Formats: sequence, C-alpha cells, structure tokens
Amino acid sequence: MILVTNDDGISAPGIRALIGMMKEIGEVVVVAPDKPQSATGHAITINNTLYINKIDIDADVAEEYSCSGTPVDCVKLAVHEILGKKPDICVSGINHGSNSSINVIYSGTMSAAVEAGIEGIPAIGFSLLDYSWEADFEAARKFIKKITLETLKNKLPKNVVLNVNIPKLPEKEIKGIKVCRQANAMWIETFDKRTNPQGRDYYWLTGEFVNEDKGEDTDEAALENGYISIVPVQFDLTAHHAIKEINMWEL
Amino acid sequence: MILVTNDDGISAPGIRALIGMMKEIGEVVVVAPDKPQSATGHAITINNTLYINKIDIDADVAEEYSCSGTPVDCVKLAVHEILGKKPDICVSGINHGSNSSINVIYSGTMSAAVEAGIEGIPAIGFSLLDYSWEADFEAARKFIKKITLETLKNKLPKNVVLNVNIPKLPEKEIKGIKVCRQANAMWIETFDKRTNPQGRDYYWLTGEFVNEDKGEDTDEAALENGYISIVPVQFDLTAHHAIKEINMWEL
Repeated sequence: MILVTNDDGISAPGIRALIGMMKEIGEVVVVAPDKPQSATGHAITINNTLYINKIDIDADVAEEYSCSGTPVDCVKLAVHEILGKKPDICVSGINHGSNSSINVIYSGTMSAAVEAGIEGIPAIGFSLLDYSWEADFEAARKFIKKITLETLKNKLPKNVVLNVNIPKLPEKEIKGIKVCRQANAMWIETFDKRTNPQGRDYYWLTGEFVNEDKGEDTDEAALENGYISIVPVQFDLTAHHAIKEINMWEL
Repeated sequence: MILVTNDDGISAPGIRALIGMMKEIGEVVVVAPDKPQSATGHAITINNTLYINKIDIDADVAEEYSCSGTPVDCVKLAVHEILGKKPDICVSGINHGSNSSINVIYSGTMSAAVEAGIEGIPAIGFSLLDYSWEADFEAARKFIKKITLETLKNKLPKNVVLNVNIPKLPEKEIKGIKVCRQANAMWIETFDKRTNPQGRDYYWLTGEFVNEDKGEDTDEAALENGYISIVPVQFDLTAHHAIKEINMWEL
C-alpha cells in the first residue's frame, strides 16, 4: 500500500499528479491536509483538535482522507488511526516549488516524508521547481516512478528518507538523476512592511535565495545542469564531528 | 547583544527566567511569540501577515517585542527588521518540557536556535524536563550561564547550534554537563478520539515516548543519570553515508 500526502492540500494539482503515477505501482491511500500547509516544517498539532474527512475525488483510489492538521499530523493519523498499519512506502508531493538545499528544513512536504521515516516507513518527498498551479508534472512521470520502484526494490538505508527535486524542464531535456548532498545555501530575508486600513503596521516575509556553495556534488548544481536531484536526508541532527571539539570546553 | 526568544510565548516563566540570567551576561533584546507556539517545528509564516508589538515587561531589558508569528519568524524579524544586525548570540527557551532526542525536530524552541544558526549566529536552545508553569528554572542558573559564556568564548563549530536539556532536579543534585549524541528514540502515537457537541468526531494527538537506544553517550542517558545534556545540532540534513549506497541503484 502506498500512502500519498503533501503540504499544498489534497486538491493541489501536484498531489493529484502523484496519485495518478502511484496508481500504476500499487494500491493508493491518500491522507493529506484539507488546506495549504506550505512551510509548516515539522509542526504538529498538540493544542488543537484534529478532524478527518473521508472524501472521494478519484474513483480509482482505494481511500482518500483530508485532515485539518499539518502534513506531519497527516502521516501520524494515517499510520496510527486511519490505516492502523504501516504502508509499504510514503510519498509526499509533488510540491509546487523547490525543496532543495536549506528549503528541506522549512518544507511541510519533506517533513511529512521525514515523519514517515521516523516511523520506519520508506519515504520520498517530490518537488518540482515550478510554483505555478499549472505546472507540468507529467514531464517527470517516468523518473518519479523509477525512483519509487527503486526505493521499494533496494530498501533505504536505516533512518534515511529521500528529498527529490525536479527541474522545470520538458521531459526530453531532463538529463537524468543525480544523488547529491544538500547545498549550503540560505535565504536572505527582507520584510515587506505595509500599513493596514486601521493604521497598524504589518509585515510580509520575503527573501532572496543565495547559494554560495559551488560544489558540483550539490542538489543546486544538479538542478542547474538539468538533472533531478536526490538528497538522502537524516533525522539524527547530531553534529557528531562537533562533539570532540565541544568536549574540550571548560564545562 | 543577546537575542532571547522561545516558543512558549513572551510571558512564559521559562523565558522570563532566561532573560534574568542573560541580563547578568550582557545587553538583552527579547523578540518572542505573542502566544504559545509549542511544537511548531521550523514553520514560517508565508501566507499570512506578521505583527510586531513593542512591549515593556522588564524595565531592565533594553527592548522587548512580541510577534504574531512562529519562533523562526521571530528570529528572522529580529535580525532583519528589528535589530538590523546580528546579535552576538541567540538563546531560546527555557522551554517548559524536554527537547531531547527526536523532540528536537518538533521543537519551536530548537527551531528558533537552528534558524539563528542558519543566519550565522551562535545559538543555544535550553529546555527543562518539567512541563509545569511553576517549574524551578533557577536550579540550572549557574549551568546555563556557564554554557552561554563558554559558547561566547570558544565559538561554535561552523553550522552547529546547541541543544541543552536540563534534568528536573534541585541544583545540588545536578551532577554536571555532558556533550552527547541525540538518542535514537521516538513517539508511539495514539489518538484520543472524541465526539463534539455537534456529533462530529475529532482527535487529540497523544503518545508515549519510547527509547530503545541504550547508548551511554546519548542525551537520554545523561539526563537519566542527573546530567545536563548538550547535543551539537546541524542543519545539513544530508545523510552523507547513504550517498554511496544509493548511487548503486539503477537510477
């Protein structure tokens, strides 16, 4: 059984495309947010109630549920309440927009995949570098299916999930797939300050993505060169290399 | 200048205690959520407006601001809008409750520290293993000050922040400080299903923390034995060890 989720909401074109691809691989169950939950990171709902609605968008899909919570809530609800068992794999996306480099940490799409990984479920997050609601998700169909099938066949290393980003290119211009490290890039924020009709100042978060990591083995480099990037992602956040150094402090 | 933030909200006893400790080290500026934001992980606010209120809770503190966003929003607003420069250090907490082991990934307290780290600011998240609003934060005063001063003195390794957890013990029973790795533990979720007055089912997320990692070098082991744990945390999520293995797949 294939669990499909996302962070753009259950009716987003990206998840509908992914459902279509996964139906060709196995039985699909969808548990996804009932509204957009972009950039919710690994948020979970502990101070509020959660609702589940059984819905019926695609007649060919075994079951579909929309949930009131975050992408991570959706995975927890799917495994422990709706399915009552672990799916064979969890795929999240296809996200409308990049989750390469540092974006992985803000991404609801990837947090859903990471949560599945924590639960011991093979998991992949897919993202297309096109924010448009009319984006062409079909160009990557054969690659997405291949990556999913290879993940099912080979099994993932322990405590690792995959972050897959897809360049905005027609199918025949996608050069292939590269396994990469996360580029060391970041956002330089600027806040767009405005005044509301009541005279109170408010802010919109905006920013510019800056990549000063010139490594050829990064996801950003792969994407710039027309490749699909796969970054294996871990959720042991320990900086093991730093333990020795900090042990030399006078603590 | 010391930037203080948290995820329990600007009026929480934990942040008020931390502010009191930091005032003895340097000039303090507070930018913290205007309401509880526990378990928001690395969420940011991109589809909603952000408000900042200058407030005056503690006469000895240079400036205090409450913000409508998440802990990560608070750090971004502090650096790029309120301060207009990087503080010397960012401390987050003291969280009401543990952020050891896998909790780091759900924690708003730690996500604020990680965000500061992404911005190149030395950063520490402090958490006390006591959820009570009446918790004794003073027992750890000397340790929190020591860790902060040592961080300022020694500098942190690049792209690393500190996750500090403090056992719920009187000062004289705290045995010391240990630098650790994140225990490989997780939550086993159960959902508490109820019916609302309108007859609709809803759920509360609950769960049991299960640690099957018996390593003596973990944060959980340190805490159980009466030590304060420090885990160096990184935000390069790449599972570097997995790249070679996945490169052997037929992609």
